[in-house]
Amino acid sequence: MDKKEQDQLKKEAATKAAMMVEPNSVLGVGTGSTVAFFIDALGERKEKEGFSLKHIVTTSNRSKKQLESLGFKVDELSDIDQADLTVDGADRVDDDLNGIKGGGGALTLEKNVAINSKKIIWIVDESKLVHRLGDFPLPVEVLPISCEQNFRKFEQEGLKPQWRMDENGKRYVTHYGNYIIDLAVDPLPVIHGLADYLDHTVGVVEHGLFLDMCDEVIIAHSDGTIEDKTK
Amino acid sequence: MDKKEQDQLKKEAATKAAMMVEPNSVLGVGTGSTVAFFIDALGERKEKEGFSLKHIVTTSNRSKKQLESLGFKVDELSDIDQADLTVDGADRVDDDLNGIKGGGGALTLEKNVAINSKKIIWIVDESKLVHRLGDFPLPVEVLPISCEQNFRKFEQEGLKPQWRMDENGKRYVTHYGNYIIDLAVDPLPVIHGLADYLDHTVGVVEHGLFLDMCDEVIIAHSDGTIEDKTK
Repeated sequence: MDKKEQDQLKKEAATKAAMMVEPNSVLGVGTGSTVAFFIDALGERKEKEGFSLKHIVTTSNRSKKQLESLGFKVDELSDIDQADLTVDGADRVDDDLNGIKGGGGALTLEKNVAINSKKIIWIVDESKLVHRLGDFPLPVEVLPISCEQNFRKFEQEGLKPQWRMDENGKRYVTHYGNYIIDLAVDPLPVIHGLADYLDHTVGVVEHGLFLDMCDEVIIAHSDGTIEDKTK
Repeated sequence: MDKKEQDQLKKEAATKAAMMVEPNSVLGVGTGSTVAFFIDALGERKEKEGFSLKHIVTTSNRSKKQLESLGFKVDELSDIDQADLTVDGADRVDDDLNGIKGGGGALTLEKNVAINSKKIIWIVDESKLVHRLGDFPLPVEVLPISCEQNFRKFEQEGLKPQWRMDENGKRYVTHYGNYIIDLAVDPLPVIHGLADYLDHTVGVVEHGLFLDMCDEVIIAHSDGTIEDKTK
């Protein structure tokens, strides 16, 4: 499948998600190439149906700018109570709709939006599907203060830690001034236990395991079909 | 007891703690009025015995400056593996040597030093002792992004949240650019369960419950005695 065909598929999946958004609801919008098509589809609904939303919050400046260019007003998470629905991508999704997110480095913001959403839909292409979570390093955002200690602890636990680097070969710094340690152990062992361990690890700000959060995944398959999978 | 007598008592407790520090060990040093006396006592040992340490890390610039003025070199936590001993104060200590810390706002740094210490001694005066943890608001450091949602959640859970304010009447901002929500529920309910809940709460960077961490408490009693309490 060439890029044009792939984009066409992503667009179909994104349009399907856009049709699920209730008018006058509070919407969370994630980031990524498929989410960009989703935002375009929202813009089309706005133009054709006069569709509007009560509030929109996003997980990136990129999505914010795209939404604003289409005439949508974007609010901060602190301005709302919770989102009725959040539409986002995911780096990997398993058979139970658990996911790894944070490949782009914005896991903390993404999780804060997700946790304050009544419903979550992820739009992904087939390549993101795995039976068991793995096949993608798990991002862990850590405070610089004890990052060396945490890196060594992860090593001792067999989690195969790697520093996330930026384009200049330096440690990648998050929006919050922290580092990211990617855990390359594959597949991830006992995901709920691992999430619990990371939640309790002092110095860990957030991690990319999004467990029991997603309600529905819209999948663009390479054979041209769109699958809608719910729990 | 007047301030002079109280200071004399704090000094005795601090000197006792300073005598417990092994030469050439790695030491963590906290902050507070009693810890300031502890640092002075370390300086005296240095002068009289030629006592030296392998590494020192601190939880505040104030302690760092005091140590440096006495000729000690202060390292970053990232420079060491772990501390052999950390000496710090505490805002409240219960019968099982569990504590509340973070009244000064540095809970995240304090906990990162504590968790990377083999042994922890707290020096406190009698007024800090409680049978059950409470009698002091529990600080919770939260990311600004979802702080409003977390405040409301804490309210719903009956934890009596209050924003920590600065001297200008604005929200206090931590070293890491976050806010502090003080939980004023008193006494604190099921402390291990509460700590677990806060560890799992997305948007919480750290909290001031230091449970099962402290090995020894040196207490300056108002009757002039110094008590050494271990688990």
